Amino acid sequence: MDEFDRIARYFAPLAAPSAFALRDDAALLDARTVVTKDCMVAGVHFMGDEDASLIARKLLRVNLSDIAAMGARPTHYLVGLMAPALTPEAWFAAFARGLSEDQAQYGIMLLGGDTTATPGPLSLSLTMFGRLETAPLLRSGAKVGDAVYMSGTLGDAALGLRMLQGSLSPRGALIARYHLPQPRTDLALGGIAHACMDISDGLLQDMGHIARASGVGVELEASLLPLSADARALLAADASLLEPIVTGGDDYEILFTAPENLLLEGVTRIGRVVAGEGVHLRDADGNALHFARAGYTHF
Amino acid sequence: MDEFDRIARYFAPLAAPSAFALRDDAALLDARTVVTKDCMVAGVHFMGDEDASLIARKLLRVNLSDIAAMGARPTHYLVGLMAPALTPEAWFAAFARGLSEDQAQYGIMLLGGDTTATPGPLSLSLTMFGRLETAPLLRSGAKVGDAVYMSGTLGDAALGLRMLQGSLSPRGALIARYHLPQPRTDLALGGIAHACMDISDGLLQDMGHIARASGVGVELEASLLPLSADARALLAADASLLEPIVTGGDDYEILFTAPENLLLEGVTRIGRVVAGEGVHLRDADGNALHFARAGYTHF
Repeated sequence: MDEFDRIARYFAPLAAPSAFALRDDAALLDARTVVTKDCMVAGVHFMGDEDASLIARKLLRVNLSDIAAMGARPTHYLVGLMAPALTPEAWFAAFARGLSEDQAQYGIMLLGGDTTATPGPLSLSLTMFGRLETAPLLRSGAKVGDAVYMSGTLGDAALGLRMLQGSLSPRGALIARYHLPQPRTDLALGGIAHACMDISDGLLQDMGHIARASGVGVELEASLLPLSADARALLAADASLLEPIVTGGDDYEILFTAPENLLLEGVTRIGRVVAGEGVHLRDADGNALHFARAGYTHF
Repeated sequence: MDEFDRIARYFAPLAAPSAFALRDDAALLDARTVVTKDCMVAGVHFMGDEDASLIARKLLRVNLSDIAAMGARPTHYLVGLMAPALTPEAWFAAFARGLSEDQAQYGIMLLGGDTTATPGPLSLSLTMFGRLETAPLLRSGAKVGDAVYMSGTLGDAALGLRMLQGSLSPRGALIARYHLPQPRTDLALGGIAHACMDISDGLLQDMGHIARASGVGVELEASLLPLSADARALLAADASLLEPIVTGGDDYEILFTAPENLLLEGVTRIGRVVAGEGVHLRDADGNALHFARAGYTHF
Protein backbone atom coordinates (compact mmCIF):
# COMPACT_ATOMS: atom_id res chain seq x y z
CA MET A 1 0.00 0.00 0.00
CA ASP A 2 1.61 3.26 -1.07
CA GLU A 3 1.05 6.80 0.15
CA PHE A 4 -1.87 7.38 -2.23
CA ASP A 5 -3.62 4.09 -1.46
CA ARG A 6 -3.33 4.87 2.22
CA ILE A 7 -4.83 8.33 1.82
CA ALA A 8 -7.69 6.88 -0.23
CA ARG A 9 -8.34 4.08 2.23
CA TYR A 10 -7.98 5.72 5.63
CA PHE A 11 -8.28 9.45 5.20
CA ALA A 12 -10.59 10.09 2.23
CA PRO A 13 -13.61 8.68 4.14
CA LEU A 14 -13.06 11.41 6.75
CA ALA A 15 -12.97 14.24 4.24
CA ALA A 16 -15.46 17.07 3.84
CA PRO A 17 -17.10 17.32 0.39
CA SER A 18 -15.05 20.44 -0.34
CA ALA A 19 -11.84 18.43 0.13
CA PHE A 20 -12.34 16.70 -3.26
CA ALA A 21 -11.70 13.25 -1.73
CA LEU A 22 -8.17 14.46 -0.84
CA ARG A 23 -7.14 14.03 -4.46
CA ASP A 24 -6.43 17.65 -5.33
CA ASP A 25 -3.66 20.09 -4.49
CA ALA A 26 -5.80 21.98 -2.01
CA ALA A 27 -9.32 22.05 -0.53
CA LEU A 28 -12.01 24.67 -0.33
CA LEU A 29 -12.57 26.18 3.11
CA ASP A 30 -15.39 28.24 1.61
CA ALA A 31 -16.42 29.18 -1.92
CA ARG A 32 -13.52 31.60 -2.37
CA THR A 33 -10.82 30.28 -0.01
CA VAL A 34 -8.48 27.37 -0.76
CA VAL A 35 -6.18 25.81 1.81
CA THR A 36 -3.28 23.37 1.53
CA LYS A 37 -0.75 21.87 3.92
CA ASP A 38 2.61 20.32 3.12
CA CYS A 39 5.26 18.95 5.46
CA MET A 40 9.04 18.89 4.93
CA VAL A 41 11.60 16.84 6.86
CA ALA A 42 15.38 17.37 6.82
CA GLY A 43 17.04 14.52 4.93
CA VAL A 44 13.82 13.74 3.05
CA HIS A 45 12.60 16.93 1.38
CA PHE A 46 15.77 18.98 1.74
CA MET A 47 19.35 18.26 2.67
CA GLY A 48 19.25 19.97 6.07
CA ASP A 49 22.52 21.90 5.83
CA GLU A 50 21.15 24.62 3.57
CA ASP A 51 21.00 28.17 4.85
CA ALA A 52 17.84 28.37 6.96
CA SER A 53 16.49 31.19 4.81
CA LEU A 54 16.50 28.82 1.82
CA ILE A 55 14.69 26.15 3.83
CA ALA A 56 12.02 28.67 4.84
CA ARG A 57 11.56 29.82 1.26
CA LYS A 58 11.33 26.26 -0.09
CA LEU A 59 8.72 25.49 2.58
CA LEU A 60 6.64 28.47 1.50
CA ARG A 61 7.12 27.80 -2.18
CA VAL A 62 6.07 24.14 -2.29
CA ASN A 63 2.80 25.31 -0.73
CA LEU A 64 2.54 28.37 -2.98
CA SER A 65 2.78 25.95 -5.88
CA ASP A 66 -0.28 24.05 -4.62
CA ILE A 67 -2.23 27.30 -4.32
CA ALA A 68 -1.20 28.26 -7.87
CA ALA A 69 -2.31 24.82 -9.09
CA MET A 70 -5.85 25.58 -7.85
CA GLY A 71 -5.90 28.85 -9.79
CA ALA A 72 -5.87 30.92 -6.59
CA ARG A 73 -3.87 33.90 -5.33
CA PRO A 74 -1.95 33.20 -2.08
CA THR A 75 -2.83 35.33 0.95
CA HIS A 76 -1.78 33.92 4.35
CA TYR A 77 0.05 31.01 5.98
CA LEU A 78 0.73 29.27 9.28
CA VAL A 79 4.03 27.58 10.04
CA GLY A 80 4.88 24.63 12.29
CA LEU A 81 8.54 24.41 13.26
CA MET A 82 9.84 21.31 15.06
CA ALA A 83 13.52 22.05 15.67
CA PRO A 84 16.32 20.18 17.47
CA ALA A 85 16.82 21.60 20.97
CA LEU A 86 20.29 22.97 20.25
CA THR A 87 19.31 24.85 17.11
CA PRO A 88 21.30 28.10 17.30
CA GLU A 89 19.65 31.49 17.54
CA ALA A 90 21.11 32.54 14.19
CA TRP A 91 19.26 29.68 12.51
CA PHE A 92 15.90 31.07 13.62
CA ALA A 93 16.90 34.55 12.53
CA ALA A 94 17.81 33.26 9.06
CA PHE A 95 14.65 31.17 8.84
CA ALA A 96 12.52 34.23 9.65
CA ARG A 97 14.49 36.30 7.14
CA GLY A 98 13.64 33.75 4.44
CA LEU A 99 9.96 33.90 5.34
CA SER A 100 10.11 37.68 5.27
CA GLU A 101 11.74 37.81 1.83
CA ASP A 102 9.11 35.57 0.28
CA GLN A 103 6.28 37.33 2.09
CA ALA A 104 7.33 40.45 0.23
CA GLN A 105 7.82 38.61 -3.06
CA TYR A 106 4.47 36.80 -3.03
CA GLY A 107 2.31 39.24 -1.08
CA ILE A 108 1.49 36.88 1.78
CA MET A 109 1.40 37.26 5.58
CA LEU A 110 1.94 34.99 8.57
CA LEU A 111 -1.20 34.10 10.54
CA GLY A 112 0.23 31.86 13.25
CA GLY A 113 1.80 28.52 13.95
CA ASP A 114 3.76 26.62 16.54
CA THR A 115 7.39 26.07 17.48
CA THR A 116 8.42 23.00 19.45
CA ALA A 117 11.54 21.03 20.19
CA THR A 118 12.15 17.63 18.60
CA PRO A 119 14.69 14.92 19.38
CA GLY A 120 14.65 14.14 15.65
CA PRO A 121 15.55 16.01 12.48
CA LEU A 122 14.21 19.48 11.72
CA SER A 123 10.60 18.95 10.64
CA LEU A 124 8.37 21.60 9.15
CA SER A 125 4.72 22.01 8.34
CA LEU A 126 3.06 24.84 6.51
CA THR A 127 -0.59 25.69 5.88
CA MET A 128 -1.19 28.13 3.01
CA PHE A 129 -4.39 29.97 2.11
CA GLY A 130 -5.38 31.33 -1.27
CA ARG A 131 -8.19 33.43 -2.68
CA LEU A 132 -10.11 32.31 -5.76
CA GLU A 133 -11.48 34.75 -8.33
CA THR A 134 -12.71 31.91 -10.59
CA ALA A 135 -13.81 28.32 -9.99
CA PRO A 136 -11.03 26.15 -8.50
CA LEU A 137 -8.88 24.20 -10.97
CA LEU A 138 -9.14 20.48 -10.22
CA ARG A 139 -7.37 17.38 -11.46
CA SER A 140 -10.62 15.87 -12.65
CA GLY A 141 -11.50 18.15 -15.55
CA ALA A 142 -9.33 16.81 -18.39
CA LYS A 143 -11.29 16.16 -21.61
CA VAL A 144 -10.44 13.87 -24.51
CA GLY A 145 -8.99 16.09 -27.20
CA ASP A 146 -7.35 18.50 -24.74
CA ALA A 147 -3.71 19.28 -25.14
CA VAL A 148 -1.40 18.79 -22.15
CA TYR A 149 0.77 21.74 -21.16
CA MET A 150 3.34 22.51 -18.53
CA SER A 151 5.03 25.68 -17.30
CA GLY A 152 8.78 26.26 -17.18
CA THR A 153 11.28 23.45 -17.61
CA LEU A 154 11.29 19.85 -16.39
CA GLY A 155 13.78 17.89 -14.30
CA ASP A 156 16.13 20.65 -13.24
CA ALA A 157 15.59 20.08 -9.54
CA ALA A 158 15.86 16.29 -9.84
CA LEU A 159 19.20 16.66 -11.62
CA GLY A 160 20.25 19.24 -9.02
CA LEU A 161 19.51 16.74 -6.26
CA ARG A 162 21.72 14.14 -7.99
CA MET A 163 24.48 16.73 -8.01
CA LEU A 164 24.06 17.35 -4.27
CA GLN A 165 24.14 13.59 -3.74
CA GLY A 166 27.40 13.38 -5.73
CA SER A 167 26.23 11.27 -8.67
CA LEU A 168 26.46 14.15 -11.19
CA SER A 169 28.95 16.99 -11.55
CA PRO A 170 27.52 20.17 -10.04
CA ARG A 171 25.86 22.88 -12.11
CA GLY A 172 24.75 25.83 -10.03
CA ALA A 173 21.54 26.61 -11.88
CA LEU A 174 20.16 23.10 -11.37
CA ILE A 175 21.15 22.93 -7.69
CA ALA A 176 19.45 26.30 -7.22
CA ARG A 177 16.25 24.86 -8.70
CA TYR A 178 16.34 22.07 -6.11
CA HIS A 179 16.88 24.48 -3.24
CA LEU A 180 14.47 27.14 -4.38
CA PRO A 181 11.37 26.25 -6.40
CA GLN A 182 9.81 28.94 -8.56
CA PRO A 183 6.07 28.53 -7.97
CA ARG A 184 3.95 29.77 -10.86
CA THR A 185 1.65 32.01 -8.86
CA ASP A 186 1.25 34.37 -11.83
CA LEU A 187 -0.07 31.90 -14.42
CA ALA A 188 -3.76 32.81 -13.92
CA LEU A 189 -5.22 29.70 -15.55
CA GLY A 190 -8.73 30.20 -14.16
CA GLY A 191 -11.22 29.87 -17.01
CA ILE A 192 -8.46 28.41 -19.25
CA ALA A 193 -7.29 25.07 -17.82
CA HIS A 194 -9.67 22.09 -17.74
CA ALA A 195 -7.53 20.08 -15.29
CA CYS A 196 -4.57 21.38 -13.35
CA MET A 197 -2.04 20.39 -10.69
CA ASP A 198 1.55 21.08 -9.81
CA ILE A 199 4.40 18.69 -10.60
CA SER A 200 5.96 17.83 -7.27
CA ASP A 201 6.51 14.05 -7.30
CA GLY A 202 7.52 13.43 -10.92
CA LEU A 203 5.80 14.28 -14.20
CA LEU A 204 4.68 10.74 -15.01
CA GLN A 205 3.20 10.04 -11.58
CA ASP A 206 1.50 13.43 -11.33
CA MET A 207 0.14 13.16 -14.88
CA GLY A 208 -1.29 9.83 -13.77
CA HIS A 209 -3.24 11.60 -11.04
CA ILE A 210 -4.93 13.83 -13.63
CA ALA A 211 -5.60 10.86 -15.92
CA ARG A 212 -7.20 8.79 -13.15
CA ALA A 213 -9.18 11.69 -11.67
CA SER A 214 -10.48 12.59 -15.13
CA GLY A 215 -11.05 9.06 -16.43
CA VAL A 216 -8.86 9.58 -19.48
CA GLY A 217 -5.52 8.51 -20.93
CA VAL A 218 -2.57 10.75 -21.74
CA GLU A 219 0.04 10.56 -24.51
CA LEU A 220 3.21 12.54 -23.82
CA GLU A 221 6.03 13.11 -26.31
CA ALA A 222 9.56 13.10 -24.90
CA SER A 223 10.74 15.36 -27.71
CA LEU A 224 8.31 18.08 -26.61
CA LEU A 225 9.41 18.21 -22.96
CA PRO A 226 10.76 21.67 -22.09
CA LEU A 227 14.33 21.33 -20.83
CA SER A 228 16.75 23.95 -19.60
CA ALA A 229 20.03 24.34 -21.49
CA ASP A 230 21.81 22.54 -18.63
CA ALA A 231 19.37 19.62 -18.60
CA ARG A 232 19.49 19.35 -22.39
CA ALA A 233 23.29 19.17 -22.35
CA LEU A 234 23.33 16.51 -19.64
CA LEU A 235 20.68 14.43 -21.41
CA ALA A 236 22.57 14.62 -24.71
CA ALA A 237 25.61 13.15 -22.94
CA ASP A 238 23.67 10.48 -21.01
CA ALA A 239 20.24 9.37 -22.28
CA SER A 240 19.53 7.52 -19.02
CA LEU A 241 19.00 10.88 -17.32
CA LEU A 242 15.57 11.01 -18.94
CA GLU A 243 14.40 8.89 -16.01
CA PRO A 244 15.11 11.39 -13.21
CA ILE A 245 13.84 14.17 -15.46
CA VAL A 246 10.40 12.64 -15.90
CA THR A 247 10.07 10.86 -12.54
CA GLY A 248 12.28 12.79 -10.13
CA GLY A 249 9.95 15.45 -8.81
CA ASP A 250 10.59 18.77 -7.04
CA ASP A 251 9.74 20.62 -10.24
CA TYR A 252 6.91 22.74 -8.82
CA GLU A 253 5.82 23.61 -12.32
CA ILE A 254 2.15 23.67 -13.33
CA LEU A 255 0.78 20.77 -15.37
CA PHE A 256 -2.58 21.33 -17.03
CA THR A 257 -4.87 20.39 -19.87
CA ALA A 258 -6.68 22.89 -22.06
CA PRO A 259 -7.87 23.21 -25.66
CA GLU A 260 -5.27 22.87 -28.42
CA ASN A 261 -3.48 25.93 -29.76
CA LEU A 262 -3.29 27.74 -26.45
CA LEU A 263 -0.67 30.47 -26.60
CA LEU A 264 0.62 31.43 -23.17
CA GLU A 265 4.07 32.72 -22.38
CA GLY A 266 6.27 30.28 -20.47
CA VAL A 267 4.04 27.32 -21.23
CA THR A 268 4.85 24.34 -23.50
CA ARG A 269 2.54 21.75 -25.04
CA ILE A 270 3.88 18.28 -24.14
CA GLY A 271 1.13 15.88 -25.22
CA ARG A 272 -2.58 15.21 -25.47
CA VAL A 273 -5.52 13.69 -23.65
CA VAL A 274 -6.96 10.54 -25.24
CA ALA A 275 -9.73 8.08 -24.50
CA GLY A 276 -8.62 5.18 -22.32
CA GLU A 277 -6.38 5.21 -19.29
CA GLY A 278 -2.78 5.50 -18.20
CA VAL A 279 0.06 7.81 -19.14
CA HIS A 280 2.32 6.91 -22.05
CA LEU A 281 5.55 8.71 -22.77
CA ARG A 282 6.79 8.11 -26.32
CA ASP A 283 10.08 8.79 -28.06
CA ALA A 284 10.38 10.46 -31.46
CA ASP A 285 9.63 7.14 -33.19
CA GLY A 286 6.43 6.60 -31.20
CA ASN A 287 7.88 3.89 -28.97
CA ALA A 288 6.61 3.83 -25.39
CA LEU A 289 9.30 4.53 -22.78
CA HIS A 290 9.08 2.59 -19.52
CA PHE A 291 10.59 3.30 -16.10
CA ALA A 292 10.79 1.29 -12.92
CA ARG A 293 8.62 3.81 -11.12
CA ALA A 294 6.64 6.84 -12.21
CA GLY A 295 7.60 9.16 -9.40
CA TYR A 296 8.38 9.71 -5.77
CA THR A 297 6.32 8.05 -3.05
CA HIS A 298 6.84 8.08 0.67
CA PHE A 299 6.70 4.73 2.49
CA MET B 1 15.87 33.42 24.68
CA ASP B 2 12.87 31.16 25.27
CA GLU B 3 10.13 30.04 22.91
CA PHE B 4 8.01 33.14 23.55
CA ASP B 5 10.87 35.62 23.17
CA ARG B 6 11.79 33.95 19.91
CA ILE B 7 8.25 34.18 18.56
CA ALA B 8 8.05 37.84 19.55
CA ARG B 9 11.43 38.68 18.05
CA TYR B 10 11.48 36.73 14.79
CA PHE B 11 7.94 35.80 13.89
CA ALA B 12 5.64 38.52 15.27
CA PRO B 13 7.06 41.11 12.80
CA LEU B 14 5.85 38.84 9.97
CA ALA B 15 2.32 38.52 11.29
CA ALA B 16 -0.87 39.83 9.72
CA PRO B 17 -2.89 42.25 11.90
CA SER B 18 -5.52 39.55 12.42
CA ALA B 19 -2.88 37.29 14.00
CA PHE B 20 -2.88 39.39 17.20
CA ALA B 21 0.95 39.60 17.21
CA LEU B 22 0.99 35.77 17.56
CA ARG B 23 0.09 36.13 21.23
CA ASP B 24 -3.33 34.47 21.17
CA ASP B 25 -4.55 30.90 20.86
CA ALA B 26 -5.63 31.37 17.26
CA ALA B 27 -5.81 33.98 14.51
CA LEU B 28 -8.61 35.37 12.40
CA LEU B 29 -8.62 34.28 8.78
CA ASP B 30 -11.66 36.48 8.23
CA ALA B 31 -14.20 38.14 10.54
CA ARG B 32 -15.91 34.85 11.39
CA THR B 33 -13.18 32.22 10.91
CA VAL B 34 -10.43 31.42 13.42
CA VAL B 35 -7.50 29.15 12.68
CA THR B 36 -4.85 27.55 14.87
CA LYS B 37 -1.99 25.12 14.35
CA ASP B 38 -0.25 22.93 16.92
CA CYS B 39 2.49 20.36 16.44
CA MET B 40 3.12 17.22 18.49
CA VAL B 41 6.28 15.09 18.53
CA ALA B 42 6.60 11.58 19.99
CA GLY B 43 8.67 11.70 23.17
CA VAL B 44 7.92 15.40 23.67
CA HIS B 45 4.14 15.85 23.61
CA PHE B 46 3.14 12.22 24.01
CA MET B 47 4.91 9.02 24.92
CA GLY B 48 4.79 7.46 21.46
CA ASP B 49 3.68 3.97 22.44
CA GLU B 50 0.04 4.90 22.97
CA ASP B 51 -2.59 3.37 20.75
CA ALA B 52 -2.54 5.44 17.54
CA SER B 53 -6.22 6.30 17.95
CA LEU B 54 -5.38 8.05 21.24
CA ILE B 55 -2.56 9.98 19.58
CA ALA B 56 -4.93 11.14 16.83
CA ARG B 57 -7.54 12.24 19.35
CA LYS B 58 -5.01 14.10 21.49
CA LEU B 59 -3.76 15.87 18.36
CA LEU B 60 -7.28 16.99 17.50
CA ARG B 61 -8.13 17.93 21.05
CA VAL B 62 -5.17 20.19 21.81
CA ASN B 63 -6.23 22.18 18.76
CA LEU B 64 -9.93 22.01 19.64
CA SER B 65 -8.96 23.54 22.97
CA ASP B 66 -7.40 26.53 21.18
CA ILE B 67 -10.56 27.01 19.12
CA ALA B 68 -12.67 26.85 22.29
CA ALA B 69 -10.38 29.42 23.91
CA MET B 70 -11.27 31.89 21.14
CA GLY B 71 -14.98 31.37 21.77
CA ALA B 72 -15.46 29.64 18.42
CA ARG B 73 -17.15 26.43 17.27
CA PRO B 74 -14.76 23.97 15.52
CA THR B 75 -15.56 23.07 11.90
CA HIS B 76 -12.65 21.62 9.86
CA TYR B 77 -9.03 20.53 10.15
CA LEU B 78 -5.97 19.54 8.14
CA VAL B 79 -3.47 16.99 9.37
CA GLY B 80 0.26 16.60 8.70
CA LEU B 81 1.63 13.15 9.46
CA MET B 82 5.39 12.55 9.42
CA ALA B 83 5.78 8.86 10.21
CA PRO B 84 8.77 6.49 10.41
CA ALA B 85 9.09 4.48 7.20
CA LEU B 86 8.32 1.13 8.84
CA THR B 87 5.13 2.30 10.55
CA PRO B 88 2.76 -0.67 10.23
CA GLU B 89 -0.49 -0.48 8.31
CA ALA B 90 -2.52 -1.13 11.46
CA TRP B 91 -1.09 2.03 12.99
CA PHE B 92 -2.54 4.17 10.21
CA ALA B 93 -5.87 2.39 10.50
CA ALA B 94 -5.99 3.09 14.24
CA PHE B 95 -4.91 6.70 13.74
CA ALA B 96 -7.72 7.25 11.23
CA ARG B 97 -10.18 5.53 13.57
CA GLY B 98 -9.24 8.01 16.30
CA LEU B 99 -9.77 10.95 13.94
CA SER B 100 -13.11 9.50 12.91
CA GLU B 101 -14.31 9.07 16.49
CA ASP B 102 -13.54 12.64 17.41
CA GLN B 103 -14.93 13.98 14.13
CA ALA B 104 -18.24 12.50 15.21
CA GLN B 105 -17.90 13.73 18.79
CA TYR B 106 -17.00 17.32 17.91
CA GLY B 107 -18.79 17.77 14.60
CA ILE B 108 -15.67 18.46 12.54
CA MET B 109 -14.43 17.24 9.15
CA LEU B 110 -11.06 16.65 7.49
CA LEU B 111 -10.11 19.14 4.76
CA GLY B 112 -6.71 17.83 3.73
CA GLY B 113 -3.13 17.42 4.79
CA ASP B 114 0.05 15.60 3.99
CA THR B 115 1.69 12.29 4.87
CA THR B 116 5.45 11.87 4.55
CA ALA B 117 8.15 9.58 5.82
CA THR B 118 10.61 10.74 8.48
CA PRO B 119 13.89 9.22 9.70
CA GLY B 120 12.99 10.67 13.12
CA PRO B 121 10.19 10.19 15.62
CA LEU B 122 6.54 10.37 14.68
CA SER B 123 5.79 14.08 14.23
CA LEU B 124 2.36 15.56 13.77
CA SER B 125 0.89 18.89 12.82
CA LEU B 126 -2.73 19.91 12.83
CA THR B 127 -4.52 23.01 11.58
CA MET B 128 -8.00 23.57 13.04
CA PHE B 129 -10.66 26.00 11.90
CA GLY B 130 -13.50 27.43 13.95
CA ARG B 131 -16.52 29.60 13.34
CA LEU B 132 -17.24 32.64 15.49
CA GLU B 133 -20.75 33.76 16.37
CA THR B 134 -19.45 36.55 18.66
CA ALA B 135 -16.27 38.62 18.79
CA PRO B 136 -13.14 36.48 19.35
CA LEU B 137 -12.00 36.04 22.96
CA LEU B 138 -8.45 37.35 23.35
CA ARG B 139 -5.86 37.28 26.08
CA SER B 140 -5.70 41.06 26.21
CA GLY B 141 -9.13 41.89 27.62
CA ALA B 142 -8.69 41.34 31.38
CA LYS B 143 -9.87 44.29 33.50
CA VAL B 144 -8.88 45.24 37.05
CA GLY B 145 -11.67 43.96 39.27
CA ASP B 146 -12.41 40.90 37.10
CA ALA B 147 -12.50 37.52 38.75
CA VAL B 148 -10.33 34.76 37.30
CA TYR B 149 -12.06 31.49 36.46
CA MET B 150 -11.08 28.13 35.05
CA SER B 151 -13.03 25.15 33.76
CA GLY B 152 -12.69 21.58 35.03
CA THR B 153 -9.84 20.51 37.30
CA LEU B 154 -6.16 21.43 37.36
CA GLY B 155 -3.04 19.28 37.22
CA ASP B 156 -4.53 15.89 36.46
CA ALA B 157 -2.57 15.45 33.22
CA ALA B 158 0.70 16.67 34.76
CA LEU B 159 0.33 14.13 37.57
CA GLY B 160 -0.63 11.47 34.99
CA LEU B 161 2.58 12.18 33.09
CA ARG B 162 4.62 11.67 36.28
CA MET B 163 2.91 8.31 36.66
CA LEU B 164 3.82 7.33 33.10
CA GLN B 165 7.40 8.45 33.83
CA GLY B 166 7.43 6.25 36.95
CA SER B 167 7.82 8.93 39.62
CA LEU B 168 4.27 8.47 41.00
CA SER B 169 2.12 5.36 41.49
CA PRO B 170 -0.33 5.02 38.63
CA ARG B 171 -3.96 6.17 38.87
CA GLY B 172 -5.94 5.44 35.74
CA ALA B 173 -8.07 8.58 35.72
CA LEU B 174 -5.04 10.89 35.80
CA ILE B 175 -3.15 8.96 33.12
CA ALA B 176 -6.28 9.12 30.98
CA ARG B 177 -6.32 12.90 31.35
CA TYR B 178 -2.74 13.03 30.01
CA HIS B 179 -3.56 10.81 27.06
CA LEU B 180 -6.90 12.34 26.20
CA PRO B 181 -7.61 16.02 26.90
CA GLN B 182 -11.24 17.10 27.28
CA PRO B 183 -11.41 20.35 25.34
CA ARG B 184 -14.16 22.67 26.54
CA THR B 185 -15.78 23.30 23.18
CA ASP B 186 -19.19 23.73 24.81
CA LEU B 187 -18.37 26.55 27.23
CA ALA B 188 -19.74 29.34 24.98
CA LEU B 189 -17.99 32.23 26.73
CA GLY B 190 -18.60 34.72 23.92
CA GLY B 191 -20.00 37.91 25.41
CA ILE B 192 -19.09 36.70 28.92
CA ALA B 193 -15.30 36.40 29.21
CA HIS B 194 -13.15 39.54 29.05
CA ALA B 195 -9.90 37.62 28.48
CA CYS B 196 -9.58 33.95 27.65
CA MET B 197 -7.06 31.27 26.74
CA ASP B 198 -6.54 27.58 27.29
CA ILE B 199 -4.17 26.15 29.90
CA SER B 200 -1.69 24.06 27.96
CA ASP B 201 1.75 24.93 29.35
CA GLY B 202 1.01 25.37 33.07
CA LEU B 203 -1.50 27.59 34.88
CA LEU B 204 1.05 30.08 36.20
CA GLN B 205 2.79 30.57 32.86
CA ASP B 206 -0.44 30.81 30.90
CA MET B 207 -1.98 33.18 33.45
CA GLY B 208 1.13 35.31 32.94
CA HIS B 209 0.29 35.56 29.23
CA ILE B 210 -3.11 37.04 30.06
CA ALA B 211 -1.60 39.39 32.66
CA ARG B 212 1.04 40.70 30.25
CA ALA B 213 -1.30 40.97 27.27
CA SER B 214 -3.84 42.86 29.41
CA GLY B 215 -1.38 45.02 31.35
CA VAL B 216 -2.67 43.83 34.72
CA GLY B 217 -1.62 41.70 37.69
CA VAL B 218 -3.31 38.54 38.92
CA GLU B 219 -3.75 37.15 42.44
CA LEU B 220 -4.54 33.43 42.58
CA GLU B 221 -5.49 31.49 45.71
CA ALA B 222 -4.15 27.95 45.97
CA SER B 223 -7.06 26.96 48.18
CA LEU B 224 -9.52 27.79 45.39
CA LEU B 225 -7.86 25.68 42.69
CA PRO B 226 -10.26 22.98 41.48
CA LEU B 227 -8.69 19.57 42.00
CA SER B 228 -9.97 16.12 41.15
CA ALA B 229 -10.39 13.66 44.01
CA ASP B 230 -7.23 11.85 42.85
CA ALA B 231 -5.18 15.04 42.70
CA ARG B 232 -6.49 16.19 46.07
CA ALA B 233 -5.50 12.88 47.70
CA LEU B 234 -2.02 12.98 46.20
CA LEU B 235 -1.48 16.60 47.24
CA ALA B 236 -2.63 15.86 50.79
CA ALA B 237 0.05 13.16 50.99
CA ASP B 238 2.80 15.25 49.35
CA ALA B 239 2.51 19.04 49.33
CA SER B 240 5.37 19.35 46.83
CA LEU B 241 3.00 18.09 44.13
CA LEU B 242 1.48 21.58 44.02
CA GLU B 243 4.33 22.48 41.71
CA PRO B 244 3.45 20.09 38.84
CA ILE B 245 -0.22 20.90 39.38
CA VAL B 246 0.22 24.64 38.78
CA THR B 247 3.14 24.53 36.32
CA GLY B 248 2.89 21.15 34.57
CA GLY B 249 0.60 21.85 31.66
CA ASP B 250 -1.43 19.57 29.41
CA ASP B 251 -4.61 20.64 31.23
CA TYR B 252 -6.47 21.94 28.19
CA GLU B 253 -8.93 23.67 30.45
CA ILE B 254 -10.18 27.18 29.76
CA LEU B 255 -8.76 30.07 31.82
CA PHE B 256 -10.66 33.34 31.66
CA THR B 257 -11.52 36.56 33.43
CA ALA B 258 -15.03 37.93 33.76
CA PRO B 259 -17.07 39.96 36.24
CA GLU B 260 -17.37 38.65 39.80
CA ASN B 261 -20.28 36.39 40.75
CA LEU B 262 -20.43 34.54 37.45
CA LEU B 263 -22.37 31.31 37.83
CA LEU B 264 -21.50 28.79 35.16
CA GLU B 265 -21.57 25.05 35.54
CA GLY B 266 -18.15 23.36 35.57
CA VAL B 267 -16.32 26.63 36.17
CA THR B 268 -14.48 27.68 39.36
CA ARG B 269 -13.33 31.11 40.52
CA ILE B 270 -9.59 30.89 41.37
CA GLY B 271 -8.51 34.51 41.86
CA ARG B 272 -8.82 38.10 40.77
CA VAL B 273 -7.35 40.68 38.42
CA VAL B 274 -5.53 43.55 40.13
CA ALA B 275 -3.64 46.67 39.13
CA GLY B 276 0.07 46.05 38.61
CA GLU B 277 1.79 43.15 36.94
CA GLY B 278 2.77 39.52 37.43
CA VAL B 279 0.93 36.47 38.70
CA HIS B 280 0.99 35.68 42.42
CA LEU B 281 -0.23 32.40 43.84
CA ARG B 282 -0.94 32.61 47.56
CA ASP B 283 -1.56 29.99 50.21
CA ALA B 284 -4.40 30.15 52.72
CA ASP B 285 -2.35 32.53 54.91
CA GLY B 286 -1.73 34.93 52.05
CA ASN B 287 1.93 33.97 51.60
CA ALA B 288 3.20 34.02 48.01
CA LEU B 289 4.25 30.61 46.68
CA HIS B 290 7.28 30.48 44.40
CA PHE B 291 8.41 27.87 41.90
CA ALA B 292 11.56 27.44 39.88
CA ARG B 293 9.63 27.90 36.65
CA ALA B 294 6.08 28.91 35.83
CA GLY B 295 5.45 26.37 33.09
CA TYR B 296 6.64 24.37 30.15
CA THR B 297 8.81 25.93 27.46
CA HIS B 298 10.46 24.32 24.50
CA PHE B 299 14.15 25.08 23.88
